[in-house]
Amino acid sequence: MANDIDVLVSEVGPRDGLQNTRQFMPTEYKKTWISAAAAAGLREIECCSFVPPKLIPQMVDAAEVVRHALTLPGLTVAVLAPNLKGAECAVEAGAQKITLPISVSRSHSLANVRMTPDEAIAEANRVCQLRDSLPAARRPKIEAGLSTVFGCTIEGNVSEDEVVRLAVASVEAGCDEVGLADTTGYANPEQVKRVFKKVRAAIGEKLGGAHLHNTRGLGLANVVAALDVGVRTFDSSLGGLGGCPFAPGATGNIVTEDLVYMLEAMGLRTGVDIEKLIAIRAIVAAGIPGEALYGYVPAAGVAKGFAPATGRRRA
Amino acid sequence: MANDIDVLVSEVGPRDGLQNTRQFMPTEYKKTWISAAAAAGLREIECCSFVPPKLIPQMVDAAEVVRHALTLPGLTVAVLAPNLKGAECAVEAGAQKITLPISVSRSHSLANVRMTPDEAIAEANRVCQLRDSLPAARRPKIEAGLSTVFGCTIEGNVSEDEVVRLAVASVEAGCDEVGLADTTGYANPEQVKRVFKKVRAAIGEKLGGAHLHNTRGLGLANVVAALDVGVRTFDSSLGGLGGCPFAPGATGNIVTEDLVYMLEAMGLRTGVDIEKLIAIRAIVAAGIPGEALYGYVPAAGVAKGFAPATGRRRA
Repeated sequence: MANDIDVLVSEVGPRDGLQNTRQFMPTEYKKTWISAAAAAGLREIECCSFVPPKLIPQMVDAAEVVRHALTLPGLTVAVLAPNLKGAECAVEAGAQKITLPISVSRSHSLANVRMTPDEAIAEANRVCQLRDSLPAARRPKIEAGLSTVFGCTIEGNVSEDEVVRLAVASVEAGCDEVGLADTTGYANPEQVKRVFKKVRAAIGEKLGGAHLHNTRGLGLANVVAALDVGVRTFDSSLGGLGGCPFAPGATGNIVTEDLVYMLEAMGLRTGVDIEKLIAIRAIVAAGIPGEALYGYVPAAGVAKGFAPATGRRRA
Repeated sequence: MANDIDVLVSEVGPRDGLQNTRQFMPTEYKKTWISAAAAAGLREIECCSFVPPKLIPQMVDAAEVVRHALTLPGLTVAVLAPNLKGAECAVEAGAQKITLPISVSRSHSLANVRMTPDEAIAEANRVCQLRDSLPAARRPKIEAGLSTVFGCTIEGNVSEDEVVRLAVASVEAGCDEVGLADTTGYANPEQVKRVFKKVRAAIGEKLGGAHLHNTRGLGLANVVAALDVGVRTFDSSLGGLGGCPFAPGATGNIVTEDLVYMLEAMGLRTGVDIEKLIAIRAIVAAGIPGEALYGYVPAAGVAKGFAPATGRRRA
C-alpha cells in the first residue's frame, strides 16, 4: 500500500454493483463513473467481470471499460473472472488484478461457478500458470476471493477449518493474495476477528482484504472488527449497489461513502475526498435511473467539524 | 446486571422513538408494545418522558403508561425527565429509573432544556435530594444522560475534557450512573473507545451505558467499539424509531432488532428472543400507521444456521 494512506478502499460498484442491477448502465456512464472515482482518490476499482454476456449482459463491454480505466494514473484496474477463460480475456484487456471467486461452500460453488471448491483451486492454478507465462510487466496480481466464508444461504454454517484449508490451497496454487468475502451478509464482528486471525496464522501476509456485505446491517461493525485484527483493505460499493434483492435499507455491499467517512473520522487515511465521492452518486443515478442508492452519510451529510484524517496519530 | 445476560439492551422506543413521530400512538398500543417487549425478554424499557404535554403531546399519558409497565414482572421501568418538576411526576408515577439529560454542549443545553450544563447539574442534584427523601423502596435510580458527548450540530466538536468534567460533576451531584449519548450521530468508533475510557478512568463503575444514534450508519460499528472497552448497556429503539428527520435509511436510534441480532450472533446473551422482537413491529406499525420502521434483520431475516448466544464461550 502507498504510504500516504492507511487503508485501501477498493471500489467494486462497477462490477459487483452493476452485476445486480436490472438495467444496463451505458458504457459512457461506466467510464465517467470510474474516472470520477479515481479523481476522488480511490486507488483500486473493480471495473467489471469477464463472464459470458449471455449470463450477465451488464458486462458485455468489459474490455472497453478496462481499456478506459487503464488510462487513469495511479489506479489499479481490478476485474473479476470466474475461470481461466475469463482470466484470458482479462489479461488480453490488460487487467492489473484479477479476482477469482472460490466458494468455500460446496453447494454455493457448484451453483455459482459449476465447480467444486477444489476444482476452483485447480482452475486458479491454471490462471496462475497463465500469469507466469506472461512478460513480467504484463502479469496481473491474482487474488483468490474466498466467498461464503462466513456462512452460506444454502448450507448455513461454513467450516472455518475449510476456510483455512482453501486459503492455504489458494496460496499453494500460486495466488498472490487471498481475500475473504461475506457473500451472504452472515458475518458478525466476533467471527470476523476469529476467521481473519486463523487465516493470517496460516498464510501470513498473503492474507488480503475483506469483502463485506451489509445485508443485516453489520457491514461497518464488521469493518471495525477487521481493522482490530489488522485488515487494511476493504471492498465497498458506491451507494451500496449490488448484492441483495431485499427490502429498502437491506443493501448488499457496504456503502463506499459511509466506509470512507467512518475511516477518515477514525483518523485512518483513505486518500479519498468524501465530498467528491458523494458527488459521484449523481453520475450513477443518471446511468441507471430509478435504481436505489443507499448510504447514510450522503443523506445526513458529514458531521459539523468533521475533518479528514491527517496521518498524525491521535492522543 | 442479571447473570443470565451479558449485555443489557435498554429499549427507548416508547420514549425517544415516539417523541419524534408525527402521530400520537394511542395509549393502548403503547401498553401492548411495552408488554410485548418485556415478553420478548427486554429487561429495561424507557417508557415515556415527563415533559409538559403542550411541548410533547405524545407523552400526555406518561403516568398511565408507567403504571402499566410496573405490572410487568422483571422489568425496570425507566423514564426521562428534563428537570425536577418532571422527576417529581416520574416519582409520583412510580418510575424505577429516571434519566436526566445533561447536554455537554452549552448551546444545545440551552436550546434543549433552557439551562446551562452546570445549571442542569444543579438540577440533577435537586432530583437526587428528592430521591434521598423517599423511603428506600421507592427510590428510583438516577442516571445522568450526558448528551451531545460526541459532537453538536450547533457547536461542532465537543471538548472531551468537558465531558469528563460533567461526568464527575454528575456523580458528585449524587447521580447513580452516567450514560453517554451520541445525540447527533457524530460518533466514530475510535472516539467512542477513547471517550468511554476517559470517563471510566474518572468515575469508574458509575459509568453507565451508551446511547448511540445511527444517523451516519455507524451505530453498530460504535457498539462494537464500546463493547471493546467494556460497555455492557446499550440503548436502542424498535424499528430505529426516533431521532432524525433525514432521508430513508438515515435513522435516528440504533435499531433494537439489529442490535440484538448482532450481540447474540457474537455470543453475547441479551435475554431477548429475536423472532418475538421482530413480531412487535406489527404492533408499532398499527399504532402509528405509515411511520417508517427501519432495520436490516427484519428485512433480510436471520442468517441460516443462526443460533442465539448460549453463554458458553466460543473457541
